[in-house]
Amino acid sequence: MASIDERYEELTAELKQIALLNSCSSVLGWDEQTYMPPGGAEHRANQLALLAGMSHERATSPRLGEMLDALQDEEELGGPDSERAANVREARRSYERATKLPRRLVEEQSRARTLGQQAWVAARRRKDFAAFQEWLEKIVALKQEEAEAVGYGDGVRYDALLDDYEPGATTAEVKEVFGPFRDELVKLVAAIAASDVNPNIDLFSRRYPIESQREFGRKAAEAIGFDFSSGRLDEAAHPFCSSFGPGDCRLTTRYDEYHFPGAFFGTLHEAGHGIYEQGLPKEAYGTALGHSASLGIHESQSRMWENFVGRSRPFWNHFYSKAQTAFPEALGEVPLDEFFAAVNDVRPSWIRVEADEVTYNLHIMLRFELEQPLISGDLKPADVPGAWNETFHRYFDMTPPDDALGCLQDIHWSAGLIGYFPTYALGNLYAAQFFEQAAADLGDLDAMFEKGEFQPLKEWLNRNIHERGLQYRANRLVEVVTGKPLSADPLLRHLHGKFDSLYRL
Amino acid sequence: MASIDERYEELTAELKQIALLNSCSSVLGWDEQTYMPPGGAEHRANQLALLAGMSHERATSPRLGEMLDALQDEEELGGPDSERAANVREARRSYERATKLPRRLVEEQSRARTLGQQAWVAARRRKDFAAFQEWLEKIVALKQEEAEAVGYGDGVRYDALLDDYEPGATTAEVKEVFGPFRDELVKLVAAIAASDVNPNIDLFSRRYPIESQREFGRKAAEAIGFDFSSGRLDEAAHPFCSSFGPGDCRLTTRYDEYHFPGAFFGTLHEAGHGIYEQGLPKEAYGTALGHSASLGIHESQSRMWENFVGRSRPFWNHFYSKAQTAFPEALGEVPLDEFFAAVNDVRPSWIRVEADEVTYNLHIMLRFELEQPLISGDLKPADVPGAWNETFHRYFDMTPPDDALGCLQDIHWSAGLIGYFPTYALGNLYAAQFFEQAAADLGDLDAMFEKGEFQPLKEWLNRNIHERGLQYRANRLVEVVTGKPLSADPLLRHLHGKFDSLYRL
Repeated sequence: MASIDERYEELTAELKQIALLNSCSSVLGWDEQTYMPPGGAEHRANQLALLAGMSHERATSPRLGEMLDALQDEEELGGPDSERAANVREARRSYERATKLPRRLVEEQSRARTLGQQAWVAARRRKDFAAFQEWLEKIVALKQEEAEAVGYGDGVRYDALLDDYEPGATTAEVKEVFGPFRDELVKLVAAIAASDVNPNIDLFSRRYPIESQREFGRKAAEAIGFDFSSGRLDEAAHPFCSSFGPGDCRLTTRYDEYHFPGAFFGTLHEAGHGIYEQGLPKEAYGTALGHSASLGIHESQSRMWENFVGRSRPFWNHFYSKAQTAFPEALGEVPLDEFFAAVNDVRPSWIRVEADEVTYNLHIMLRFELEQPLISGDLKPADVPGAWNETFHRYFDMTPPDDALGCLQDIHWSAGLIGYFPTYALGNLYAAQFFEQAAADLGDLDAMFEKGEFQPLKEWLNRNIHERGLQYRANRLVEVVTGKPLSADPLLRHLHGKFDSLYRL
Repeated sequence: MASIDERYEELTAELKQIALLNSCSSVLGWDEQTYMPPGGAEHRANQLALLAGMSHERATSPRLGEMLDALQDEEELGGPDSERAANVREARRSYERATKLPRRLVEEQSRARTLGQQAWVAARRRKDFAAFQEWLEKIVALKQEEAEAVGYGDGVRYDALLDDYEPGATTAEVKEVFGPFRDELVKLVAAIAASDVNPNIDLFSRRYPIESQREFGRKAAEAIGFDFSSGRLDEAAHPFCSSFGPGDCRLTTRYDEYHFPGAFFGTLHEAGHGIYEQGLPKEAYGTALGHSASLGIHESQSRMWENFVGRSRPFWNHFYSKAQTAFPEALGEVPLDEFFAAVNDVRPSWIRVEADEVTYNLHIMLRFELEQPLISGDLKPADVPGAWNETFHRYFDMTPPDDALGCLQDIHWSAGLIGYFPTYALGNLYAAQFFEQAAADLGDLDAMFEKGEFQPLKEWLNRNIHERGLQYRANRLVEVVTGKPLSADPLLRHLHGKFDSLYRL
């Protein structure tokens, strides 16, 4: 048998090739969303299908299985806490998950996604849940089958799906944190709704010339630490961040001449994702150590820059005069207090992606609470609209007028993404806990932000989170970084700290 | 054995997959030249190397060889002139060429290209041929070895290299056309140089705002028939046209605020390439029938739109008032006659890529005349500067002051592209012969261009050239389309027709 070094090298070389191949798909996917002319759609689908097939073949090859089998002994790798053991463990997890799914199931899911999304688009347009119901049934059944194939402990089938996006997280753990948090949120939202403070959000519908938005957003992304010599900011209908690999990370946003916050906070959000990707250890590319820890941790980085920094008073103490210079017509006469209140407007609304920092979390709770019984079988797809509206009323004291503003609003379920939503709220929770720890370690963050100094926070994130890659899974990473398990307290402190005074609660 | 239909289907399916894989590299290559941030260079090189390796493996696989072996009988395929036979023939040609090259040679060439280009860049900057000489020796030796591996008839080693770019063309055929053409060109250039007509080319160094250049160039590309719903025009340091596959063709150009013709005629040139790619039969993608006939035929399309159309009087009779509107400062007071003469300025110059419609061909002849003895071994790389300068003096009656303006100016040799240059002049010759035939078939092209009607010519090219793909090799295609073998007479008629009157010869 080859030496441990040789066996380990062979594995990582193969993992890098697979990552490299997948990163080619990322380039094609980015181009599809940013620059591809409409006529290229069919050929692009063919290209992506070919690359996906080749990647799947390589990621599930018996040869890779043999390489993993030859690296079973964690002691030989340097002990269970070693970087090598972490890389092998995560590679095995991916391999097992991929090989446990029968080819027929993968193909059926792919077909159901394509057709289900088409049905969803039409159903949402016609506000007609019935037209989507049979696809939701099909997709839920296939996800149940996937969960059974992958396996799960404790009799909670949803665990198998959650684990795909948030490795190592369990439904029970998430519920334990979400439950009390939700009750507090409902109270906070009700108190804000009852407050007589009404931020002037109309000032955001004034004219903000797109060229100025582009420049202002780019400067802000640069100021918080996104490296444009290793990245770009382009436009896309559905904004995203896509890292192609070391040294090349692409952000996108969407400009509306008569709406300022969308592109600006969207840019900060995507830049937060990008700063994470740019901070991963380049030399570990292709292995777990070079990979983000989870979707939730990823979201914690975007939310931190978007909300904890970008919607903070010290941030605007620094940036507001620049904003007034960039948008003299719209903001020249607007006092900072008025602008800052508008940036932090909180109000119940139907649509998740337009929701503010407080209510956003409740939108997620609702989906999490519906997904669990959907996957266990306790909630029939046919009963989703009723369950949605009932839960929505419980949280926000209002009922969606139709399903387009209710259970048909998100693309996720039609795309087979069940178990994904919780990572959005987990991201907010992680962000708060990390941010508190950063403040404890670094001192007066507010004073730094006021002077436009964002580098200390960025470097703290680099050291504590980015450079670790997926050495630790999310819940463990939180403990390693903050010394405590995940808790909703930091986020509640943050929200009360800001909104109690803004809304005079 | 499977039926002929099944065997043929199996081959074309595999060819399409190989083409699809190569087209992924095209997307990555385009992005590299247009949008990639500098930090992405190393990762991009890794991605492209991976794709190139996978593509090479597939294009030289024994399995593909077996598929081709099972399709040897041209009668069974529908006779030697059938589309199927053409597809199989060209696939076999590519396969044989690829499999004849030993892996060691391919790798050595790749390394020599990379290092040779670096040496060339430095040598050109320092005007120091000696610093490049050893790389030229290495590259020439490897190309000689490649020619020997591929094989050739008639004892002309250069044939094997020429054939890579212009399938089926031989050195003897090309010399037969180039020889008398060159003698006539030398006379024409001398006559123009002796003429007392001096076009006012200074008007091109006025200010042409880039945004206006972009819009004007795009409109012209659209007017001649480039379909922007299936393509784009972006910017790149070294302009090119890259077709990703059916429905997606990317053009690039380069703007200089103080030089009008570069970007404008460059855009028409690349649009000509793009119109060819957009006109190839989509359903034949991946096979010879869906592929351009040769580099020379490709160049005939770009040159036709750039020179035969774009530098013609009727083109500017239609477009000049629009140009004056787009560039009022630079052109508002300039009469059309003066502008048109400047667009057709002819004068000997050192640099090929800046040369005019007449002298350009002589730059090519010179390279063709040096490449043949270089490859046969009759010209030592060390003697290239002397041979270059001597030939240059013979053609243009002037001698390059240094090698940067002489034999070090082009990237081609350092990139291993020997045998490629002749296709540029062949393109001009093909263009002239096709253009005469189009005029004979369509009637008064000038009258059409004056009215801005370019569609009849574009559709004639679609029918006669584009839709045929590589059903015929270039020299045969010329005969099929024009009824005559390739001749320099049409190009000489075109040049005398335009320049005798412009320069009052």
